[in-house]
Amino acid sequence: MPNDPPYLPLPAGEIGLLTDLYELTMAQSYFAEGIHGEATFSLFVREYPPNRGYLVAAGVDDALDCLEALAFDGNSIDYLRSTGIFTADFLEYLRDFRFTGSARAMPEGTLFFAHEPVLEVTGPVIAAQLVETIVMNQVQYQTLLATKSARCVQAAQGRPIADFAARRTHGTEASLKMARTSYIAGFGATSNVLAARRYGIPPTGTMAHSYVTTFDAEIDAFRAYSRMFSDRSILLLDTYDTVNAAHSTVKVAREMESDGHRLTGVRLDSGDFDALSRQVRRILDDAGLDYVRIVASGGLDEYEIERLVTGGAPIDMFGVGTRVGVSADAPSCEIVYKMVSYGDRPVMKFSENKESLPGAKQVFRHYDAQGLMSADVIGLAAEDVPGAEPVLVQAMRDGRRIVPPSTIADARQRVADGLSRLPEPHRRLRDPFRYPVSTSDGLQQLESQIRGRLTAALTS
Amino acid sequence: MPNDPPYLPLPAGEIGLLTDLYELTMAQSYFAEGIHGEATFSLFVREYPPNRGYLVAAGVDDALDCLEALAFDGNSIDYLRSTGIFTADFLEYLRDFRFTGSARAMPEGTLFFAHEPVLEVTGPVIAAQLVETIVMNQVQYQTLLATKSARCVQAAQGRPIADFAARRTHGTEASLKMARTSYIAGFGATSNVLAARRYGIPPTGTMAHSYVTTFDAEIDAFRAYSRMFSDRSILLLDTYDTVNAAHSTVKVAREMESDGHRLTGVRLDSGDFDALSRQVRRILDDAGLDYVRIVASGGLDEYEIERLVTGGAPIDMFGVGTRVGVSADAPSCEIVYKMVSYGDRPVMKFSENKESLPGAKQVFRHYDAQGLMSADVIGLAAEDVPGAEPVLVQAMRDGRRIVPPSTIADARQRVADGLSRLPEPHRRLRDPFRYPVSTSDGLQQLESQIRGRLTAALTS
Repeated sequence: MPNDPPYLPLPAGEIGLLTDLYELTMAQSYFAEGIHGEATFSLFVREYPPNRGYLVAAGVDDALDCLEALAFDGNSIDYLRSTGIFTADFLEYLRDFRFTGSARAMPEGTLFFAHEPVLEVTGPVIAAQLVETIVMNQVQYQTLLATKSARCVQAAQGRPIADFAARRTHGTEASLKMARTSYIAGFGATSNVLAARRYGIPPTGTMAHSYVTTFDAEIDAFRAYSRMFSDRSILLLDTYDTVNAAHSTVKVAREMESDGHRLTGVRLDSGDFDALSRQVRRILDDAGLDYVRIVASGGLDEYEIERLVTGGAPIDMFGVGTRVGVSADAPSCEIVYKMVSYGDRPVMKFSENKESLPGAKQVFRHYDAQGLMSADVIGLAAEDVPGAEPVLVQAMRDGRRIVPPSTIADARQRVADGLSRLPEPHRRLRDPFRYPVSTSDGLQQLESQIRGRLTAALTS
Repeated sequence: MPNDPPYLPLPAGEIGLLTDLYELTMAQSYFAEGIHGEATFSLFVREYPPNRGYLVAAGVDDALDCLEALAFDGNSIDYLRSTGIFTADFLEYLRDFRFTGSARAMPEGTLFFAHEPVLEVTGPVIAAQLVETIVMNQVQYQTLLATKSARCVQAAQGRPIADFAARRTHGTEASLKMARTSYIAGFGATSNVLAARRYGIPPTGTMAHSYVTTFDAEIDAFRAYSRMFSDRSILLLDTYDTVNAAHSTVKVAREMESDGHRLTGVRLDSGDFDALSRQVRRILDDAGLDYVRIVASGGLDEYEIERLVTGGAPIDMFGVGTRVGVSADAPSCEIVYKMVSYGDRPVMKFSENKESLPGAKQVFRHYDAQGLMSADVIGLAAEDVPGAEPVLVQAMRDGRRIVPPSTIADARQRVADGLSRLPEPHRRLRDPFRYPVSTSDGLQQLESQIRGRLTAALTS
């Protein structure tokens, strides 16, 4: 599969303005003060969303694409001038502005944990600060969607899942990324045709209730659809009465058989999925249609899929939409982008419940003899933790990517590998055990040095 | 203020593919069966999200822009061909496909209620069906964000609010629409610079913690910032210790005074806002700095703003981000797009809890003698309800808009008017009283006719 081309969320020349005003006012002040030192910023999640024991890194490649493309076009400069906030020499500086720094990142699809940097950006302070908004914007929601989707994949225990979320995501950009991140997380298909084209994901779809109501009788709709799509057909049963529709399905499937075709499946989109799937399965089996598969969609998430699967409902495939496409039980998380060093000086923040770890860092992952993940250590980038694998890779240098973006296939494999190597207690869908993450000796020493220095400065 | 140009969420030639596959498979079947009758689809919200007593229509103009621009470019046609699902003559048909129908819509910013159509689309069934995904996508999340923002405006009781959500919305498209819809809802500014440029919203911003940590001492950061921005400066107090920073603020503000300048404000971004704002207010007032305003941001939503305002916290301005930008307590709602008539035949759906009202409709709004909204009636489009004002307007005919999109100023005025005319019990932030919405005699008769006809058909 080819690499995805960089589908930027905005025209490259507008990416510079997709930032909070304070990034630009701070930049103006740094510029005026001659502050051009090198800074490192760390992107991490402070705390898990409810019931999450792991997170799936997603959107990191988009964030890096944005860094590489970052620019201010003429309209952007004109607009900034019109605000009266900025000096002429600063606006000239922005005209040629590019991100010239470096970045270390977790590869797309890597499992990660609270407090671990998923991305570290190093560069002149103006540039490294300016990208905060777009980096956080791209990584937060995609990570939430990838994580929610991975939980659905776990719950489905091997049954295929399709993304049906396009109509309920927060915008078209979110719909495309929902399709991509859910496929990375292990879904099998998407209903979103543009996403299918862009990312090479199998497209899938059946029929809507409106299709059924367009015909005088439901069975006429079923016949018309199967006439057109024959073996690909999946009939929607709940427009009027599901059990009645199952009996009509039997008639149509037998007509198809007499023409040498086989109906693929039926879809339930409302009601009690457990009871209805059993009734429909019985009707189909009694008619010798054991090959017809049952798809369920409508209001599903990992909790409901788990309930249906563990309860033994004869559902062969799930379509998920709204609740997963907005990560309904956790539509945001405490992701932050914090300066951790400036010049040759590591920095940190002490505000109540908002502490950050100082210095450019690396995440070191330990595996046990069976190859299962056993513990992570957050250390300094320059440290070495014997027996552990570093997780962040150098992704960008001098403003250019030095490793290509992950293919969607590679990212998908990474999630599958991660989930298979994460011990079950940390994968539980409810009240997971906290995965052990500690800080290295080097990081602890640095932290207490800075704490001492700052306390002295504040009390002097 | 000029009209917003149509900022399409995607290149026009890709809008056709931003759809669920089943819209295209149904279209292929209609095409093959020669089904080209005119259909009307109705977009409405089945039930209120928690604690909502009203909804603010938003994204309707974007949906109409998408209808007007809808097309399949060459890449889209090539992709569809490659799936092997579609016939050559259908693909030729899509090559020249345009939306040629009509639409009636609530103007952007109109208050509306459960079951009321916010948009009705009429056209050849293939076209009217095909746009389902993008219409729902655009209207759902923007309506949720506008509604959540309007609730914050209510809670703030006249204190200005700024949108700080860009980093936590679901993508850049969502960040731009958050800025726009929150301004329509009554916010005063946005930190999102691109949104400020596109929509003519006042940009706002202060400084980040990282700015403070870049300097050796906090007060050096405050001095550098005020040196640059003088009277526009707002200093961030919680990087190390808020009370300590308030004392530094006093020093800097006095230095500014001696140069003939006045500090605008200080910002609190963590901790107990009620207690801290009182402490900081006292420190500032004791130093004769009563003109310095206090801004609070961080984790705010309508509930927390209401608590702070009614508790008397001396906060002059609020910045809201995450919880509003993802509509955290209601990141989705039960919005649906249902066929309500086909050819000369009204249709409806009976699935459990998923009923729809038949026929092209109009919403009629009654006002009392004081000009307050008193009740809505959902009637047939052709009906007349004496003494009530129709809410839906003819927005599009023969595939072209016949009224221009609302300006952001007009939409903003519409929300303000709506809120001032909606009686308080329906505006409450918790457990609002349900606004009275009934169906007209004509609609009730039609519904019972169809119900009778369908029951007869199912039992025959």
